[in-house]
Amino acid sequence: MNLIILSKDDFIEDTSRVNIQDHRLEHIIKVNKPSVGDELRVGLINGDIGSGRIRSIEKNGIEMDVVLDRKPPAPLQLTLIFAMVRPRVFKRVLTQVTAMGIKKVIVINSYRVEKSFWKSPVLEEANLNKYLIRGLEQGQDTIVPEVLIRPLFKPFVEDELPDIIKGTLPFVAHPYTSEPCPYNIGRPVTLAVGPEGGFIQYEVDKLIECGFSTVHLGERTLHVESAISGLISRLM
Amino acid sequence: MNLIILSKDDFIEDTSRVNIQDHRLEHIIKVNKPSVGDELRVGLINGDIGSGRIRSIEKNGIEMDVVLDRKPPAPLQLTLIFAMVRPRVFKRVLTQVTAMGIKKVIVINSYRVEKSFWKSPVLEEANLNKYLIRGLEQGQDTIVPEVLIRPLFKPFVEDELPDIIKGTLPFVAHPYTSEPCPYNIGRPVTLAVGPEGGFIQYEVDKLIECGFSTVHLGERTLHVESAISGLISRLM
Repeated sequence: MNLIILSKDDFIEDTSRVNIQDHRLEHIIKVNKPSVGDELRVGLINGDIGSGRIRSIEKNGIEMDVVLDRKPPAPLQLTLIFAMVRPRVFKRVLTQVTAMGIKKVIVINSYRVEKSFWKSPVLEEANLNKYLIRGLEQGQDTIVPEVLIRPLFKPFVEDELPDIIKGTLPFVAHPYTSEPCPYNIGRPVTLAVGPEGGFIQYEVDKLIECGFSTVHLGERTLHVESAISGLISRLM
Repeated sequence: MNLIILSKDDFIEDTSRVNIQDHRLEHIIKVNKPSVGDELRVGLINGDIGSGRIRSIEKNGIEMDVVLDRKPPAPLQLTLIFAMVRPRVFKRVLTQVTAMGIKKVIVINSYRVEKSFWKSPVLEEANLNKYLIRGLEQGQDTIVPEVLIRPLFKPFVEDELPDIIKGTLPFVAHPYTSEPCPYNIGRPVTLAVGPEGGFIQYEVDKLIECGFSTVHLGERTLHVESAISGLISRLM
């Protein structure tokens, strides 16, 4: 936890003082091992970043005086669309792309996605929120990404995608294409990444029809996590 | 398993026929669900790549006629040095960088590495081999990377590192530096990545003294897995 994310509910009445409880309290005591007077990095959810000076440390709460004096880092101008993955991988992907600064994530279906994945509790709102907050804590950011879940490929691509890609360069990762992924685009991007094994040709064709260009990261087949962070870091 | 890795021991006497057993047999039956006559991608460890046509499928072995007629993909010209990480993350990192085509990996110590990590069985040779083979299966490659384990920072940097970086551009990932990581270097690279929280200043200074330049991937602190795959995909 490189940043402690605060919510309005943590503040004591109309003061700039907070009382931190729940998993954050545990983490701070175990990892930061702070003393009274120490300063920790804090940020208000969907708000500014700053520091909290510790007033007291008790088993049931840490009190801090908070100053929020900086904007969170600029968002990454990249909308990420990825095919639903194995639930334990999904958690890590969502947390990692949040840490990287992505603010719009769309989880879609693909022929090669196992149907059972869509029933996983990882897609429930409370869980999504947990993974997003973990990513913000990691990346020292406060702005919660928007996550859309779209379990039907065709209506999503036909009805919603044309608006989503407006004003962006849309790329789809496709290992069997001849164009290496470009570097340092300097413009907003929409990036679509398929499941292990890739999108099927029909799906790639639908994305191309919508305006996407196919790109690859070399002749090796990468795990979806490496592919996503690799493509993002190369494009942006 | 995008590629079935064969060893010399799989071959029946002096033929081009193999008998596949162990975890590969299980995986092929469960995931590929093949029929007699099907072709699967295979590669000889540290050798060529090709295909295997299935002759028979039994519970205790699959027999294939193998043709090895292609070279494995060209290695990535990047030596990766990273500080030892939590064992379950270590497995994933080693597998993923192998899948990306890295052929030399050096695991080093750093002030912020928990001492207990060095006692983990993940560093035992048999386990290292398992993670490397998994990476080769993922990335469709056959050349096993060299892995060096160096639990003493200073002697490694002073005595071994100068030779390792010869003929390469050496970079160290350091979030608190002003230079963004460059793109598409087009030359051999040595990349050093610290633990969660980064190298301490003394360590960064030692690396700079040795000839390294500090680079970052933006103002956010990334998880070591995202940082490694992001930096590699951007540099190469």
